[in-house]
Amino acid sequence: MTNSAAAIPGSTDQTLAELSEGEVLARIFPRLPQADTEVLGPGDDAAVLSAPDGRFVVTCDMMIQGPDFRLAWSTPHDLGWKAAATNLSDVAAMGARPTALVVAIAAPPSTPISVILGIADGLRDGCEALAPGCGVVGGDLSAADALTLSITAFGDLEGRAPVLRSGARVGDVVAHAGRLGDAGIGLGLLFRHGVDIDGVPSRVHADAVKARYSRYVDAQLAPVPPIHLGAIAAESGATAMLDVSDGLAIDAGRMARASQVGIDFDSATLGEKIALALGGGEDHGLLATFPPDVVLPAGFRRLGSVTGQAGAVLVDGAPYSQGGWDPYRGWDGAVG
Amino acid sequence: MTNSAAAIPGSTDQTLAELSEGEVLARIFPRLPQADTEVLGPGDDAAVLSAPDGRFVVTCDMMIQGPDFRLAWSTPHDLGWKAAATNLSDVAAMGARPTALVVAIAAPPSTPISVILGIADGLRDGCEALAPGCGVVGGDLSAADALTLSITAFGDLEGRAPVLRSGARVGDVVAHAGRLGDAGIGLGLLFRHGVDIDGVPSRVHADAVKARYSRYVDAQLAPVPPIHLGAIAAESGATAMLDVSDGLAIDAGRMARASQVGIDFDSATLGEKIALALGGGEDHGLLATFPPDVVLPAGFRRLGSVTGQAGAVLVDGAPYSQGGWDPYRGWDGAVG
Repeated sequence: MTNSAAAIPGSTDQTLAELSEGEVLARIFPRLPQADTEVLGPGDDAAVLSAPDGRFVVTCDMMIQGPDFRLAWSTPHDLGWKAAATNLSDVAAMGARPTALVVAIAAPPSTPISVILGIADGLRDGCEALAPGCGVVGGDLSAADALTLSITAFGDLEGRAPVLRSGARVGDVVAHAGRLGDAGIGLGLLFRHGVDIDGVPSRVHADAVKARYSRYVDAQLAPVPPIHLGAIAAESGATAMLDVSDGLAIDAGRMARASQVGIDFDSATLGEKIALALGGGEDHGLLATFPPDVVLPAGFRRLGSVTGQAGAVLVDGAPYSQGGWDPYRGWDGAVG
Repeated sequence: MTNSAAAIPGSTDQTLAELSEGEVLARIFPRLPQADTEVLGPGDDAAVLSAPDGRFVVTCDMMIQGPDFRLAWSTPHDLGWKAAATNLSDVAAMGARPTALVVAIAAPPSTPISVILGIADGLRDGCEALAPGCGVVGGDLSAADALTLSITAFGDLEGRAPVLRSGARVGDVVAHAGRLGDAGIGLGLLFRHGVDIDGVPSRVHADAVKARYSRYVDAQLAPVPPIHLGAIAAESGATAMLDVSDGLAIDAGRMARASQVGIDFDSATLGEKIALALGGGEDHGLLATFPPDVVLPAGFRRLGSVTGQAGAVLVDGAPYSQGGWDPYRGWDGAVG
C-alpha cells in the first residue's frame, strides 16, 4: 500500500490521526472565507446558498496526488490556490460570477495538520484574490492513501444567459484572456529539472527551478487566471467561451466542434513559440468569440477569426494537427 | 504503489486506459437521469440548474476504496446507489427535495469500463428509486490508484426554512424514520464472515453472507433511506432534523449540543438490541424532533422526548455513554 505521508513536509506537527474530524474542521473553517451568497454555512447536514436570479452554475473537478500534483513541487498553499483557481475558471467561462465552493479532502491519517491548514489558506487566498465574495460553504474530510481534493464551484449568472462553447458564428473575432503556454513550460521544466538523479520529483531541485523560472513554474503551480473577465466578456456580448485547460488547440477544437465552425488563429498573435502557445495546457485562460464589430474588453486580445470549416482548428488558414491530453493516458505514474 | 485493479471484477472488457475520456463520458451520460431542474446539462465548462425559490441546498461526500468500501463486497451498482443515497439523505435532512448530483470519479487506468458503467447505473437507479426527478448534471473523470467517488448533491427547499439540527426544544417529541442498526450489523457480518482465511475481503465469502443475511448486508451496501420523508417532516413542523450516518447516539449528541437540549430515548422503542440501535452507523435514517402536539408523519416513529439536559444523550432518563467513528481512526487499512 502506498503511504504517501513520507513525501509530506512539516511532519513535526500533529497528524490527522491524532485529531478528531471535529477538531480538524474546527481549525479549518475559521480560515476559510464566507460566501456573500451564504444563507447557511458549514456545520449542518448541508449548506444553503442564495441563487439571486433563480439559477446557479455548477462545476466540479478532482485533484489527486500523483496524476495531478506532486508534493515535492506544490506546497499545500499552491494546492488550495490551484484547486480554487481551476474551478473558478470553469465558472467564469460560463459568463458567471463565482460565488462559492464546497471542498472534499481525503488524506492519509499520517498527514500533518499543517498540510490541511495550508490547503485551506490557499483556498482562501485564491478566492480572495481571484473572486472576491466567493467563499467556502461546506466540505468533507475522508481518509485515503493519496491526498485528494475534490472541489465543486458555484456561480451566479446575474440574469444573463450562460455563454456556451457552441455559440461561435462565422465572422466572429476569436480572442483570449490570460497566459498562453507558460503553465506548460513550467511543467516541462519541473519534469526535466525538478527531479533528482533517479528522476524522482525533488523539492530541492524544484526550488532551484522556481528561483530561476518563477514566471513559468508559478503559472503551473499557482495560476492566476482572469476569473473576473468571464462576466465582463458575457456583458460585452461574447458568443462562445471556454476555459483553456488542455491547451489552446485542443480547447479551440472543442469550441469548433460544438459551434460547427472553424477557429482560425493568426500566427503573428501567438508569439515566437507557436507550438507551445497552442499546445501547453493548464493556463486556464478564457478563449472567447465576439461579434466582429465588438470593442474587445480590456484583458482580451484578438487571436484570429471564426471561419466556415466546421470543427476545424486552423493557423493562418491551414489545418492544425494537435496532440492531446487524457487523464488515463497522460499520467506517467510518478508520485512525489 | 497499490494497483487496486486486481480486485476489480469483469476485467475482460475494455479499460479506461484503452478509451479516451470523451469516449468514457459518451458512454456514461446516456445512462444517467436528467434532473427536472436542469437548465444546461453536461458538456460545457459547467452546468446550469434552476433554483426555483432563489436558494439551493448543497452537500458533498467522498467515498474511497479501502476506507469506505471494498470491491470484494460492493458491486459497482452498489457503489453508485450508496453514493446517491447517502448524499440525498443529507439533502433530505435539511427538509429539502433533492434535485441533482454532480459526480467526480477517479479510477485506476486499468479499471474495466463496466465498473464505471455499473456505478452510473447505480447512481441512476438510486436517484430514480429514492428521489424521482433528481438527475446527474455534471461530472469529472480522473486517474487515481484507488477508486474514488466524490458526490455533491443539491436540493430545493420549496419555499420552506431549512430544518437545522439546532432547533430542538424542550418538550418536543424525538422521532425517527428508517432503519436502526441494520447497516452496522451488515458491516459487522461482512468483517467477520465476508473474508477469507487470511482475513482478506472475499467476494465468495461475502456472497454467502449476503445469501443468508440480505436484510443486514443490503442495508450496508445499498441502503434505502427514507429520502422523501425529509420534505414531509419539514412540512409537518419538524423543529430539528439530521441524517443518522454515524449511529443514533452520536448523531443525537450532535443535535443535543447544537440545540442545547437533551435527547432522551425510551428504551422500549429501541428493540431488543439497544446498543446496536444506538451505535450502528450508516443507516441514514432521519432523526427529527417535532412539537409535542404533532401527529407524526407516516414513516416516523416516536423514540423519546427532548429534555433540558443541554448536550446530553439519555436512555430512560440516564446519560448514555457512546463510542465514536472517526475517518482517520476507524479505518483498519484493509482493502479488498
